[in-house]
Amino acid sequence: MKNVVKIALAGFGTVGTGLAKILKENKEWIKKRTGKEIVISKILVKNLNKPRTLIPHPNTIFVDTPEALFQDNDWDILVELIGGIDLPYQLITKALKLGKSVVTANKALLSMKGKDLLKLAETQNVGLYFEASVGGGIPIIQTLKESLSGNKIKAITGILNGTANYILTEMSQNELTFSEALNQAQEKGYAEADPSLDIKGIDAAHKLTILIFLAHGVVYPLEKLWVKGIENIETQDISFAKELGYVFKLIAQVKEKSGHLQAGVFPALLPQKHILAKVDGPFNAILVQGNAVGPIMLYGQGAGDLPTGSAVLADIISLIKNNYAPNNTGFIESPFKDANILDNVSVVCEHYFRFQVLDKPGVLSALSGIMGEHNISIAQAIQKAQNKKKGVPIVFLTHRARLGDVEKAINEINRFDFVLQPTVHYPIIH
Amino acid sequence: MKNVVKIALAGFGTVGTGLAKILKENKEWIKKRTGKEIVISKILVKNLNKPRTLIPHPNTIFVDTPEALFQDNDWDILVELIGGIDLPYQLITKALKLGKSVVTANKALLSMKGKDLLKLAETQNVGLYFEASVGGGIPIIQTLKESLSGNKIKAITGILNGTANYILTEMSQNELTFSEALNQAQEKGYAEADPSLDIKGIDAAHKLTILIFLAHGVVYPLEKLWVKGIENIETQDISFAKELGYVFKLIAQVKEKSGHLQAGVFPALLPQKHILAKVDGPFNAILVQGNAVGPIMLYGQGAGDLPTGSAVLADIISLIKNNYAPNNTGFIESPFKDANILDNVSVVCEHYFRFQVLDKPGVLSALSGIMGEHNISIAQAIQKAQNKKKGVPIVFLTHRARLGDVEKAINEINRFDFVLQPTVHYPIIH
Repeated sequence: MKNVVKIALAGFGTVGTGLAKILKENKEWIKKRTGKEIVISKILVKNLNKPRTLIPHPNTIFVDTPEALFQDNDWDILVELIGGIDLPYQLITKALKLGKSVVTANKALLSMKGKDLLKLAETQNVGLYFEASVGGGIPIIQTLKESLSGNKIKAITGILNGTANYILTEMSQNELTFSEALNQAQEKGYAEADPSLDIKGIDAAHKLTILIFLAHGVVYPLEKLWVKGIENIETQDISFAKELGYVFKLIAQVKEKSGHLQAGVFPALLPQKHILAKVDGPFNAILVQGNAVGPIMLYGQGAGDLPTGSAVLADIISLIKNNYAPNNTGFIESPFKDANILDNVSVVCEHYFRFQVLDKPGVLSALSGIMGEHNISIAQAIQKAQNKKKGVPIVFLTHRARLGDVEKAINEINRFDFVLQPTVHYPIIH
Repeated sequence: MKNVVKIALAGFGTVGTGLAKILKENKEWIKKRTGKEIVISKILVKNLNKPRTLIPHPNTIFVDTPEALFQDNDWDILVELIGGIDLPYQLITKALKLGKSVVTANKALLSMKGKDLLKLAETQNVGLYFEASVGGGIPIIQTLKESLSGNKIKAITGILNGTANYILTEMSQNELTFSEALNQAQEKGYAEADPSLDIKGIDAAHKLTILIFLAHGVVYPLEKLWVKGIENIETQDISFAKELGYVFKLIAQVKEKSGHLQAGVFPALLPQKHILAKVDGPFNAILVQGNAVGPIMLYGQGAGDLPTGSAVLADIISLIKNNYAPNNTGFIESPFKDANILDNVSVVCEHYFRFQVLDKPGVLSALSGIMGEHNISIAQAIQKAQNKKKGVPIVFLTHRARLGDVEKAINEINRFDFVLQPTVHYPIIH
């Protein structure tokens, strides 16, 4: 066997340079682990003239076209770290067709085109690895594919987006508004100039579909996922939650019920004692409930050059150590059926409501009356005095109730003329 | 390839029956993962006449001698779940010599004889897997061997013993004394009749040496490890810690400093905000600091039939999927050198002191004088009124100081005639 493994790297941004740094810093250690030297032999970049402070290896060649990257095919693994859909799809498809293994961090691509790509990898009997696509350096992909593969997974509950978690942590701990927290996240490099994928829950949704595929062996089409972002969370709801012993988190969750899956990405209240409630700032965590292992949680940095580079390197090492025998999905035959989906109206959980109402007699009784008519039982209520014009907020925490019933109740309540703003509602997760 | 994988199981206690239950419950799911049926074909038990409610498979044969277990050698993997040293050592050695792969949960054996057994497995080129030996169902072994193998590990900080953690949690949250909490743990099945391995830190020490081996590729002899149990922790120290914003945990820790290792098992104070401070009851967690991945934490049930059975199954599936090509240590050549050990006197951290002293003038000044002489700078102090005869407790939290200096200071302080009891001291971990 050769003693050098050659990497063709597509993209030399944050994660690509992170990978290059780790390969340099830990070169001797990686040799002890793999018996090989891992060398980045070619890098596809947009602009060949951009000055580079980090040159991975004296022999590294920078190229600016896919053709040049594939010329001679003198490398072993394609590492795709460009982002986007079309060009990565072309590059990965071409590499797989050439019988090359591929490592990618591209969750959007996997969420949308993963089925095609995994089918192709299976036909070609080559590796398509993607540890870095979910949870940065957290080994959640490996854990689902291997360590927990003998478990039936009952539930996955994750904090999968570090930007959203940073914003919610700042809103909660330092009483910032959403837009103040977002500005701060952008200044610190935790949020991009266009943060919509992160704050609208779409990035977490991409990641959740990947986890569902590995845990349950079915495809959950992205467009069928219930996705709600954090952009409308108000400071007063964060305060009420805190007063009641809860924190806000953007949760990505899938639950299995008799062969059907219930899944979504949404802001929710978690009790302060919940293990995920302690996951603050840009950190990610994934709580997995297996029918044998019980609850386990993996926690770490969900982004960043070195953590994500570490996950890419884990895939490269895994391919080398298994002599490129692929274990892409953790299943003998990749299962590409669509999930049996349980509609979200049938979700049963506790709920948080905030009504903004005129402060007049009969209001509380009318609100609780509607709740009762829809089988929603109130566990706690808070009413506070406030500015007369804007009305007063009334907060209810309820016992477990169907989401379908909750939606009906909210529709009726919003029709009352004493209700001054659309009712605010969030699920509570235990 | 055969479609049935036959297991010879040594021991049919908690974990053995857990494994059998999972294999039964998840049989079809495991086939989707491995393409095989996993069957427990023989079980070595002490007493053949004991009635068994769970029979793993219609063809399972119960035997009561090692000879009968090995007769015909008509199985593929030995799963050793007896516990103890001598018999497991014999069984595993014999299996490895026959070219059979072995899965074990036996941390004491691995800690004491792991080097011999891994050398033998390497010579024979067969698998010796031990995911269940540390952290129950938590995939920490796999994570160190594979996902983080490209990282240099700077520190591991673990809560590795569920019994000790349950006791400390009860002492802290429900204000039980140590012996009340121990009794309760025994009643609930979290502690054994003889709990000394757990409460004295020895079980955690066994596990720590296994983690050190995988993370650093060196043998840290058990007898060189600094090990201190929880049996002398007093209720008042738990209360003072709480008042100051800290919790007590039995910590297993290794830190790397310029190629040297500093390791120990000891009770320590953790800030309530520390991610490990939230690990309560019988749960375990391991925080790993890698030079690329940064901090990651794995959390789950450290014991129990199904969680530990899940880890045993993970090893079996891993052996099957890799076609028995062993990856026992995560190194190309297993490194069996002894660790370069940094003496614990050179540990630098913050400290908690409690002095029990006569309430008379000059005491505080004498205590703080000795501290100053040994370069220990006081960060916080508490003095409370108490029973005159027993004296008053004075608590100091210090800034970072060398453990060697702390020990010298304590020796001098304990010689004062106003000091009524030996001074209590614990490290603080951040």
